Amino acid sequence: MNKTPLHRRAFLTAAGAALATPALAQTNAPDPLITKVQPWANGLGDGVVDKPYGVPSKFEADVIRRDVEWLTVRKESSVSFTPLHALDGVITPNGLCFERHHGGVAHIAPDKHRLMIHGLVDKPLVFTMDELKRMAGRVNRAYFLECAANTGMEWKGAQLNGCQFTHGMVHNVWYVGLPLKVLFERAGVKTNGKWVLAEGGDNSLMTRSIPMQKALDDCMIAWNMNGEALRPEQGYPLRLVVPGWEGNMWIKWLRRLEIGDQPWEQREETSKYTDLLPDGRARHFTWVMDAKSIVTNPSPQAPLRAKGPQVLSGLAWSGRGSIKRVDVSFDGGRNWVTARIDGPVMPLSFVRFYVEFDWDGRELLIQSRAMDDTGYVQPTKDELRKARGLNSIYHNNGVQTWLVRGDGETENVEIS
Amino acid sequence: MNKTPLHRRAFLTAAGAALATPALAQTNAPDPLITKVQPWANGLGDGVVDKPYGVPSKFEADVIRRDVEWLTVRKESSVSFTPLHALDGVITPNGLCFERHHGGVAHIAPDKHRLMIHGLVDKPLVFTMDELKRMAGRVNRAYFLECAANTGMEWKGAQLNGCQFTHGMVHNVWYVGLPLKVLFERAGVKTNGKWVLAEGGDNSLMTRSIPMQKALDDCMIAWNMNGEALRPEQGYPLRLVVPGWEGNMWIKWLRRLEIGDQPWEQREETSKYTDLLPDGRARHFTWVMDAKSIVTNPSPQAPLRAKGPQVLSGLAWSGRGSIKRVDVSFDGGRNWVTARIDGPVMPLSFVRFYVEFDWDGRELLIQSRAMDDTGYVQPTKDELRKARGLNSIYHNNGVQTWLVRGDGETENVEIS
Repeated sequence: MNKTPLHRRAFLTAAGAALATPALAQTNAPDPLITKVQPWANGLGDGVVDKPYGVPSKFEADVIRRDVEWLTVRKESSVSFTPLHALDGVITPNGLCFERHHGGVAHIAPDKHRLMIHGLVDKPLVFTMDELKRMAGRVNRAYFLECAANTGMEWKGAQLNGCQFTHGMVHNVWYVGLPLKVLFERAGVKTNGKWVLAEGGDNSLMTRSIPMQKALDDCMIAWNMNGEALRPEQGYPLRLVVPGWEGNMWIKWLRRLEIGDQPWEQREETSKYTDLLPDGRARHFTWVMDAKSIVTNPSPQAPLRAKGPQVLSGLAWSGRGSIKRVDVSFDGGRNWVTARIDGPVMPLSFVRFYVEFDWDGRELLIQSRAMDDTGYVQPTKDELRKARGLNSIYHNNGVQTWLVRGDGETENVEIS
Repeated sequence: MNKTPLHRRAFLTAAGAALATPALAQTNAPDPLITKVQPWANGLGDGVVDKPYGVPSKFEADVIRRDVEWLTVRKESSVSFTPLHALDGVITPNGLCFERHHGGVAHIAPDKHRLMIHGLVDKPLVFTMDELKRMAGRVNRAYFLECAANTGMEWKGAQLNGCQFTHGMVHNVWYVGLPLKVLFERAGVKTNGKWVLAEGGDNSLMTRSIPMQKALDDCMIAWNMNGEALRPEQGYPLRLVVPGWEGNMWIKWLRRLEIGDQPWEQREETSKYTDLLPDGRARHFTWVMDAKSIVTNPSPQAPLRAKGPQVLSGLAWSGRGSIKRVDVSFDGGRNWVTARIDGPVMPLSFVRFYVEFDWDGRELLIQSRAMDDTGYVQPTKDELRKARGLNSIYHNNGVQTWLVRGDGETENVEIS
């Protein structure tokens, strides 16, 4: 073994090494990116704490939350979407978690924030943030949060060209906080306390009714997401976590939990977040987000760039339990292959799946279909429309179709 | 149930609600933070995509990586530390993962980056990033990364006042990438290929030798951390992941893997990253990071602020397997209680533990002691010194002691 400095020597002697993937263009000419010292290796880089709180590479500047300009009148009551096509794994980075605000992002100093628990309780209580952080029973849990309106525009057929926009009102985060159960035991819920009203502290004063059974089962208050303090746009310093249920109920800037004996029928559970059926009646309290999946790669914002080996990837989740299996079709649902799931499989949390395939340049109609451990199978969009008509906005968990053209460009399409 | 708007009314009627934690000061006067409309609820907040890539709250401005000015001559060859005292859960946010550079942060365009595999192989290969992302076998794994020098200054007794500085050269991240095994199968390792030299593409050309058995067992190349692209200071666009082994081996900006029949004995495995024993001989190739734990709260940067109920919290990890148990002492190691572990318990990954206790204002000597599933128990610092003498810099996994004073202020102390 030669013990002399290997650095540039090794690169020069191996400069004729073959390119790895047979399907791509190869050259026998030495690659200057290997044989020549590159600018980034030819001087000192940035020192430590150049960025005391780090940021992504400048080469990732396109990986950002985006909104759809025409969708809403004002940005303070609007939505931005998670760039699902540019991510992998099951965690959504905090800086890329989609936003849905009703009165903009409130900035609340934690020492000025209070959480009040009152109504049908033995002892009304007011907590400071410090008091909450000193209570016994802190838990760590990973959950997806999906807006009920995610994929809502797809009720009308293929619309926006990109899974960021069709499916990007969802994220998956590790939370730290306290089970509601712990707080309610402290306050002493009266026997007729069957409902909880949660209210936010921003100017929209978002309010939603939650059945006591759900609240005691797995709801929590959270002050930490993915290891650090909650982000302002996610309700800093405190939010409600309602695992598996529609995102609108996960009240941000949480300031009040009132215990009652019936639901409050607030605006966001009557005129909004209900599903209008063909006969004019509305489905009401449709809280659970059913099993759903999406192929994030390829997708319109992440087309195929060459023939040959490919890695298809996507996400699946279910508000009723754990994902059991994900199938993928390349021909619009005629034939299916079972995807390989890799990474953690946890209830009410993202699951990452992959299908490796070889692409010869033919057109593909790519779909994915999730199954959860209740036996539920993600329906087609047509099956959904048959059951609920065409008036709905919320709860579209239908199978999505991407058309991959011969040149690799990928489009959102509707097939029947 | 009164259906009129509940917002301010409810707050007014419950304004006399008791403060929650009995030990804290109470008042019967209505709290204006509850009864009065606050500024942040009295106008629109920020719109969506105000920050297309989100950032922490301005009230968290102190939660940053920090360096120690006198520790190194230049910031390009230095270290910044993870603010462990301000985090919770088991994920380290990308922006807060500690940095250790030898020539500063290189900024490499992914389309200009190459990975070469050569040496004792049937077929030398050069991969583009795109080719790597199109290979079968992609995996998702969570691992801690600890610098061998983490806690190194504590060999001399209590030094820096804060777990950010004593223990902050560690982070825990979910990675996406490819097992080395997949790449080596493609290249075809010759039967005498028993060692791997990994080399970085920055100006420091960091090189380390890794036994083939470890490489094939669980090493991987990663281009994604915590869901998004690797960060520049963590080796964007590609780094090596060497689970459970010292961080210096996790080569950043990875550009070359050479297969050989013996180790290369590079600078970073001879004059550095060896442990000088009292008799003048040096321990060599001490790769594994043994079981370790640290109480992050309370700690010098996160003192106790009042008497009464408290939540002690901390982290434990082991490079040999899974954490089995963590014990905590409040009296300098005479008596121990078993901590409550909450959140995921995965091999070679952080485990989060808690102990709830009531503080009456007396002085405490807080310690934690991790046990892993090999039966190994984290030693005291004195036990370590007895085995290895006083010349060491690396691999200090001794039990740390925090003195909590009567006023709650907390200090790094050494006890025997």
